[in-house]
This record gives sequence, structure tokens and C-alpha cells, in this order.
Amino acid sequence: MPSYKAPLREYRFLLHETFNMSQYATLPGFKDAPLDVVDAILDEAAKLAEEVLQPLNQIGDLEGCKLENGVVTTPKGFKEAYKTLVEGGWPALVADPAFGGQGLPNALGVLFNEMVSSANMAFGMYPGLSHGAYSALMHHGTDAQRATYLPKLVTGEWTGTMNLTEPHCGTDLGLLRTKAVPNGDGSYKITGTKIFISAGEHDLADNILHLVLARTEGAPQGIKGISLFLVPKFLLKEDGSLGTRNGVSCGALEHKMGIHGNATCVLNYDEAKGWLVGEENKGMRAMFTMMNEARLGVGLQGLSQSEVAYQNALAYAKDRLQGRSLTGPKEAAKPADPILVHPDVRRMLLNAKSFNEGARALLVWTALQGDLSHASDDEKAREFGDDMMALLTPVVKGYLTDRGFANAVEAQQVYGGHGYIEENGVSQFVRDARIAMIYEGANGIQALDLVGRKLAQNGGRGVFAFFKLIDDFIAANRNAKVTPFIDSLAAARKDLETATMWFMENALQNPDNAGAGSSDYLHLFGVTAIAFMWAKMAKTASEKLANGGDRSFYEAKLKTARYYFDRVVPETAVHLARIRVGAAPLMDFAADEF
Amino acid sequence: MPSYKAPLREYRFLLHETFNMSQYATLPGFKDAPLDVVDAILDEAAKLAEEVLQPLNQIGDLEGCKLENGVVTTPKGFKEAYKTLVEGGWPALVADPAFGGQGLPNALGVLFNEMVSSANMAFGMYPGLSHGAYSALMHHGTDAQRATYLPKLVTGEWTGTMNLTEPHCGTDLGLLRTKAVPNGDGSYKITGTKIFISAGEHDLADNILHLVLARTEGAPQGIKGISLFLVPKFLLKEDGSLGTRNGVSCGALEHKMGIHGNATCVLNYDEAKGWLVGEENKGMRAMFTMMNEARLGVGLQGLSQSEVAYQNALAYAKDRLQGRSLTGPKEAAKPADPILVHPDVRRMLLNAKSFNEGARALLVWTALQGDLSHASDDEKAREFGDDMMALLTPVVKGYLTDRGFANAVEAQQVYGGHGYIEENGVSQFVRDARIAMIYEGANGIQALDLVGRKLAQNGGRGVFAFFKLIDDFIAANRNAKVTPFIDSLAAARKDLETATMWFMENALQNPDNAGAGSSDYLHLFGVTAIAFMWAKMAKTASEKLANGGDRSFYEAKLKTARYYFDRVVPETAVHLARIRVGAAPLMDFAADEF
Repeated sequence: MPSYKAPLREYRFLLHETFNMSQYATLPGFKDAPLDVVDAILDEAAKLAEEVLQPLNQIGDLEGCKLENGVVTTPKGFKEAYKTLVEGGWPALVADPAFGGQGLPNALGVLFNEMVSSANMAFGMYPGLSHGAYSALMHHGTDAQRATYLPKLVTGEWTGTMNLTEPHCGTDLGLLRTKAVPNGDGSYKITGTKIFISAGEHDLADNILHLVLARTEGAPQGIKGISLFLVPKFLLKEDGSLGTRNGVSCGALEHKMGIHGNATCVLNYDEAKGWLVGEENKGMRAMFTMMNEARLGVGLQGLSQSEVAYQNALAYAKDRLQGRSLTGPKEAAKPADPILVHPDVRRMLLNAKSFNEGARALLVWTALQGDLSHASDDEKAREFGDDMMALLTPVVKGYLTDRGFANAVEAQQVYGGHGYIEENGVSQFVRDARIAMIYEGANGIQALDLVGRKLAQNGGRGVFAFFKLIDDFIAANRNAKVTPFIDSLAAARKDLETATMWFMENALQNPDNAGAGSSDYLHLFGVTAIAFMWAKMAKTASEKLANGGDRSFYEAKLKTARYYFDRVVPETAVHLARIRVGAAPLMDFAADEF
Repeated sequence: MPSYKAPLREYRFLLHETFNMSQYATLPGFKDAPLDVVDAILDEAAKLAEEVLQPLNQIGDLEGCKLENGVVTTPKGFKEAYKTLVEGGWPALVADPAFGGQGLPNALGVLFNEMVSSANMAFGMYPGLSHGAYSALMHHGTDAQRATYLPKLVTGEWTGTMNLTEPHCGTDLGLLRTKAVPNGDGSYKITGTKIFISAGEHDLADNILHLVLARTEGAPQGIKGISLFLVPKFLLKEDGSLGTRNGVSCGALEHKMGIHGNATCVLNYDEAKGWLVGEENKGMRAMFTMMNEARLGVGLQGLSQSEVAYQNALAYAKDRLQGRSLTGPKEAAKPADPILVHPDVRRMLLNAKSFNEGARALLVWTALQGDLSHASDDEKAREFGDDMMALLTPVVKGYLTDRGFANAVEAQQVYGGHGYIEENGVSQFVRDARIAMIYEGANGIQALDLVGRKLAQNGGRGVFAFFKLIDDFIAANRNAKVTPFIDSLAAARKDLETATMWFMENALQNPDNAGAGSSDYLHLFGVTAIAFMWAKMAKTASEKLANGGDRSFYEAKLKTARYYFDRVVPETAVHLARIRVGAAPLMDFAADEF
């Protein structure tokens, strides 16, 4: 049976020691999060994840969701667990106090979400999707819409969904056909079919707020003619209580490779009543607000599965006796050594461990920049936060999910044949992790967003600020303990800059040169950004070591940094080599030459 | 619905054009395989795979096998398909004519197996396992055992299994506990529990011959006390007809991530009657005979899933309209371009295509060396064939399955969200491919076999012969068309040699230095060996182009070679860099520092 322990010591190391969050204590949000409050929240969240959500993870996988007569039933125990989540006030954690939220920083919120997702990714998507709906209404809804709908989303009494995909279009939303016809009273009739709608119908909450992309009559072709609508499952009466059922129904549940505990729905809209959110034909803008937040949330899903898969593979590697160490028996009294003695088993575990700790640092740091982009009292810091959030969102989404999946696969490999047997649980981590590379913009789309949009934004201001940040760190932090890491970081940064310049020189004349190297660039960026995080963490660890205390934690931190710099960072060279090859080896093929 | 077309043109290019199999026409086996016979066999096999086996693949995944009252039922249609296979004489393809086989080269046999496995991997394992049992009896059985059992295995009327794993031991067979007690009449009572037994019980054949590792009383500890036994499901009467049921039964079927159509059994031996195969306490030697053949067979499973996943992803990429080319619309009359216009989609497809064609060449070439190790009339050629077979078996098993799985995952990515939905079939390719990295010796074990045993065998004779082979090719084949490839091949070969020398210098003093770099070395070897195959194929293609005819096939071949050299071969550098780091960054961790 798989298990999960929230890595609380790691969280404290990041929030308090590495990023020193208390330095922002005077800012909105942060001032409600002193060190002891943060720790208490993390401890309580860990209990929820470990004791309530994790025990339901395999049940959810095995049972899945059921659709009978239009009613979707979630797996046994999900309803009670969701009630516990709501009663604990967790959906309100980072929401606006004006609507009942606690207004805490998202740097804390992403760690809460990581725990929930490690414990039970399919379950975590129900409240996770609500947050996207919350953001869209928060940023684009009218005052009346916000007053009516946000408080219930914030408590979690209601949940939300995002309705983009149709059978013939996903990435290319310009093709969508769902239509919206005005009723004359400010509302619209929404008609069409949406697919792949996560948490689209379920029995956890009293109402579901669907945010739906549709096209009004006579709207311009393509993405410039798309509007966003709010379509509640139950219409509200005058007094705000639930009224009649709206014309939206679940036509089918998808049979998926994983996340069986989440109801992935075909939703049929049959003259359902909806209201415009934001301006007509500006739906894509509102949708992007939802998507960017959601993308960080998907990035952390990759991390979450890597973390829980690692924890279980490590326990297995310590427990499983098989063969002897290459350098002679390590536990001679036992019939064989635990497989943790084998370098190749350590390789698989350390790939995951060095990723988990580094990727988590990148996630928290990015979320923190997002927080500062709103909360800082310094205009430059707000701009910088905004730039980093924009630049790193596709990296966090794409790199963390690609590597998260790969690590789950390696964790499965540690189990040998037992990893292929469903009862042992690690196959579920692999199957669940797989979706994170696909949804909320497949990783190829993230890579294009990075090279095609984010690099060029504001004349490259974001990427150059990122290079400068690394340069300043390198200049300020050479010392005996971390110099080898600093050198390796500088080499990775150089490869990233060379690749960036190569795009600037070669992609304008032929955009396919950017497309051909985009996924390698995203990985090169991910490795380098995490190398930067490792250099920061190594610096903190070496300072803490010099001051004494918790030696084994900080020494392990330095050893893990070393592993990352020695064995992961060299990858940057091959990504750069591939980027420089350009588009020709890919594009010279005629369609029938494949 | 997924589909499959056997890549017959590719097979002809390899057998007839690149490896010129007719040059061996005077040798045993080869003389029964003139060009037209080979082509006729491949054509018929393709029909079997495409028309009989592939349509059952999804059914097998969905239905799985059922165990009721000790009886295992395979999925609907499997029984009839197996009957068709037997009636076609396919199990006899490469078996010894003395026992009813056709005695054809395994270079042809592996292509037959690839087709079967691409069409239906779970089904293909039933006859596949028989071949292992056949080999063990062939090489280690008595004349009487061979006469009694081989003819029925060769026709396929009976199937075989390999029984190694027990709940507490897989890799480390020295720990096994199943015991064998002499009956006094030359037979033994076998008692114990075996797990993960593929095709362990089923309804396809009249009898099942279990080859079982067990320990006689008083046998030495560890792997030196293991013997191999033959335990038929049904005991035979004097006249060779089926008699009473033996004391072996299926206790449970495993619930697996994939290959649901194959019955993976817990087999309980309860004083089952068995006979020694080969000498007492020499069971590991006999088992290795089975395993080496089986390992090539598992390597080709990786290729097979990569091939079928590629074919389906390619069809999807040509069909799915979404977005526009970065360089402007390519099919302006349609609402969007097919996604094949996008460089990043091509990257995923070409990773698979360049692997499939190169890996298949390596598989066929390795099998051919195996054939020549028996059939050649030149002692040097027999020795060389033996050396190549020994050296490359772990590479074929480990590299082809690692990359095969990765390619299936990328093919799934081409589908976007539709790839995660089981109905579209590509998830099955991923789930089925996953097991090939694990069974028949997990890939970490293959890597250790390569660096720990195969490199050193006969004082490195095999690996140096392999280098010389590449050197001779490089020296002889510089010309305008292929020189860039030759340079790239030489660079990869240099990295491989450097890594080999690094092990020789550093692994003796500390074997963990070999273990820490073993998986990277296996991948470095795989990339380089396939680069060598691509150089050979490019040479053939450029010569054929110079002579005219089938231009688009040969031009595509050169373009694919270019992709491989430009975008895959640069990986060798990062593998080398990781190898040179040595063991310290992995081994310096105490167990509680993970």
C-alpha cells in the first residue's frame, strides 16, 4: 500500500530559510502570515493530506466515477473528504478577504496544493478547478456577479469548471462552435458540446459554476469572436438560493488512462442559460487569466506525483533485499542487501529527489513573484514579479510535468516487476502524472508560448532580467562551499543565453527555427532555472552549516545540489546542440516521407 | 480505433539491400530462405498480424483474462487466433527441422515477432514464451526429453513458460525457495510459489510445459544450488497422450498496468511432478540460455510498440486540423492546417521514426550475428557472431525498451487530450510498452550485465571487435553523400570508447564507478550502435539513389538518417559527462539522507 508524508521540513527550508518570506511581512497578505501561522497552516494541511485524502487515492483509481441517469457519483469517501476540506476553510486559503477568503500568499497556496495533489491528485482537481473559475469572475466579472457567486466558490460550497475544448478543437480554440443567443434580458441561451471537462459534474457540491467559451451570432471568425459565459448548473432564485436545474447535462464520462477519481465529462449545453463574463468577443483574454493560474497548478501536479512516487520508491529500496553491493555485503546478517546499496537504484532516486527539491523551489519562487506582482509597494518589484510570472509559467507547467512523469516512471522502475502491479500504487502515480503533460495546453504549446511570446514580451525584458538576476547571484556568492556549483550554474546560464540569442538571430527569418527548438529550449530553461534555485539553496545550506544545527539536513542538501549539478546540469549542452540544428532536419520531410 | 500496417518495405530494405542476406545463401537455414521465399513469408505474416491479431488488441486490453475455479480464460477471440497461428505453422518458423521446425534464420524470425508484437503484444507473449522453453530443452534436455516435448512445442499445440520469480526474489535468484524432492524414479516433487508467470495458465493450448527453477535438498546456498525442472501441466501417458493433471495451479492473476490480454499468474506448485533439465545445481546456466533469447524478444517488444504508436500518431497528425503553420497557412482551404505542419509535432514523430528504423536494423543485425554464430562455416565469423550477440543483447533489451516506451509516450502526446482517452488506443501502447523495461531483467540489470560482464568477456574481445568494425566502415565509406554522418558516427564512437576506457581505469578500484555510469553507458552504446546502423543504411540508400529507382523511399531514408545524426547522436556527450562523474555523488549519501 502506498503512503505519503508531507515534506514539511522542506517547506520550512524554502519559505523561512531560503526565500526568507518574513522580509515581506509589511505587505498585504504576507502580514497575515507570520512564521508560526505559516507553520501551523502547513502542519494542519499535512494532516488533511495524509489522513483524509491519501487513503482515498487508490479507491478513487479503482472505483472511478459513475454516471447513471445524468447523475455523477464520485468514488467512495470523496464526498465526506470534500466536506472536511470545506469545513476546514481550505478553499478560502488564498482567496480575497472581500469575498470571505483568507488572502494568504500563493507561495503558501502552492505548497498546500502540492500536498493535496501528492495525496490524491484526482480529488485535488475538484477544488483546483474552482480556483480558475474564481479568478475569471474576480478579474472579469461584474460587481454583481462577484457578489453573487464568489462567496460560495470561496467557501467551497460550490465548485467551478473551465469549458474550452470541443470534439474538433482544443489547442485551436478559434474553431469552436458552441453558440450563445441573447434572451433579451441580459442572459444568453448557450448551445453546444464541450469535452474533457474536469469536475464537470459530480456530487460533492450543491452547485457548479461552468465558465464556458462560446460564440455570439455574427461574432468575428476565429479567436476574436469568442466570449466567456457563466452557466450555473442550478439557476439561482431571487434570494440567491438554488432554483431550477439549468440546461447543461453530463452526456458521458471519459475512460482515461488515469485520474479516474475525477469526473472528466462530455457536457451538453442545450439552450442553457448563461451570462457574459467580461466583454463580448474578449473571452480569450478572460480565459487566459484562468489558464495562467491553472498552469502553475498543473506544474505542481507533476512535482506532486514525482514526490509521492519518490517517497514510496525510497521506502521500497530500503526494504527490499536483493543482491549484494558491488563493493561487498553491507548487511551481511541479512540474506541480501537492501537495493538502496546499488548505484543505479540511487541514480533513479536521486534524479527524483534533486528534481523535487529544486522544482519545488522554482514553484514557490515563481508563486512568490506572482504575489509580489500584486502586493509589493515597489513598482519595480511589481513589474519584475509580473515578468517572472509570465516568463516562468510555461517553464513550470512544461518542465515540471515532463520531469515529474519521467520521475514517476523511474520510481516505478525501482520496484521492478512489483511496480507494474496495480495494487502497489506506483503505476497510478505514473498514469495520473501523464495527464499533466497534456492538459491546460500540451507541453509543446507551453514551449511555443515560451519561445514565441514570452521571450519577446516587452523587448525581452523578462528574460534579460532573469539573466541579470543569475549574474548578480553569481557575482555575489562565490565561496569555497558553493563555487563548483556556481561554475556549473554559469555554464548552464551561458547555454541558455546562447540558445536565446540563436532564436533572436534565426527565428525571425524562419519561425520554424523557433518551433523546432522550442521543447529543447523549455527543458534547457527548466534545468537552468532549477540550477539557479539549487545554487540559492546550497548557499543557504552552507551558511546554516557554518552556524551549526541540523547538520544532516543541510549536508544532505549540499549533496543533493552536487548530484544535480554533476548529473543533471550537463543536459543543457545537448539541448543547445539540438536547438542550433534548426528547422531543416524536421521540415524537409514531405508529408508522405514520414 | 488504432490500426497497424506491417512495414514490409522496411524489412526488404534491411534483409535484401542493407544486410544482403543472400550472401549467406550456402549456409544452413539461409539456403532455405531465398529472397522470394522471405518476401512471401513476410507478406503472409503481415496478413496474420494486421487481419487476425491487431483487431483483438483493444479487446484483450479491455477484457483481460479471467480466473474461475482454477481455469484461466483468455479474451474473446484469442483462442481462435491462436488456432490460426498454429494452423499456419508459424511457431515452427525458426525451430530445428529435426523436431518439425522450418529452421529459418532468426534475422527473419525477429521481424515476424515484431509484426505479431506490434499487432498485439499481449497475444504475442503466448507463443513467445514457448520459444524460451524450446531453447532450454533443445540445449539442455536429454534426447528423450527433446523427442517427447519439442515436437508439440514446435507446432504450438503446447506452450511453455519460464518460472523464476518468487514473492521475495526476482533479480536475486539465489534467494529462491521452491524445493525439489526426488521421487526415486528419476522424477521430483516440486513445491513452492512462483509469481509473475506470463502465460502461466490459459485456454489456448492442450498442455503447458513449465520450466521451473528450484532447489534440491542439501543443494549449495545461493545460485549455485539451483536446478531447472520441467513440470508439464498435464502428465503424459506412456503413448505420449495427455494423462492426469499435475500438481500445479494458478492461484491468482495479477492486475497489471498493461498487457491485460496475457495471463500473468501466481503459480502454486504442490508436490508437482517434474524432471531435471540439464545437470543438478546448474539450473542458472540453462536459464541463461532461455533468458538471452528472451531478451532479444523483449527488446523487439519496445520497438514494436514504438512502431505501432508512431503509425497511429502519424495518421492522427495528418488528419487532425488545428492551428496554422508558423510560416503561414499550408492548407488555406481548410479551417486549419493538419498538425503535421508544426515542427514540434514532427520532432516527436521523427524521434520515433528515426529510432524505429535504426533500432530495427540493430535488432536484425544482432539476430543475424546470432544466426552466423551457429551457421557460418568460418570459425572467425562464428566467434564474431557469438561476441556480438553477447555484447549487444543487453543493449537491444535495455535501449530498445527504454526508447520504445519513451516514443510511445511521445506518440500519445501528439494526440493531445485524445491520447489520454482509452478508446483511442495509444494509452494501451504506452501501458503495454512499460513492462518491457522491467521483465527479463530490469534495464538496470541489463546495464550491469553490459558493463560488469560483457565488456570484460574474453579480455574485451567483443567490444574491441565492435570498435574495429565501425573503424573499418568509417575508413571505407567516406563519400560526398554520407560524410557528415560518418563524422558524427566517429564522434559517437569516440565518446563510447572514452567511456569504455574510463570504466577500465576506474571500475576495478571501485566497482560502484561502473554501477553509477552503467545506465548511461547502455544508452551511449545504444545511440552509437544505432548510429552505426544508420550510417550503413545511409550508404545503401545513397548507392541506390545513384542507381535510380524508388527515389522517395531512399531520399526519406537519408533525411531520417540526417535527423538521427543531427538530433539524437549529440546525446552521447551528456552520457559520457555523467559517466565520468563517477560514483561519489550517488554513494556519498547515507541511507537517512535520501
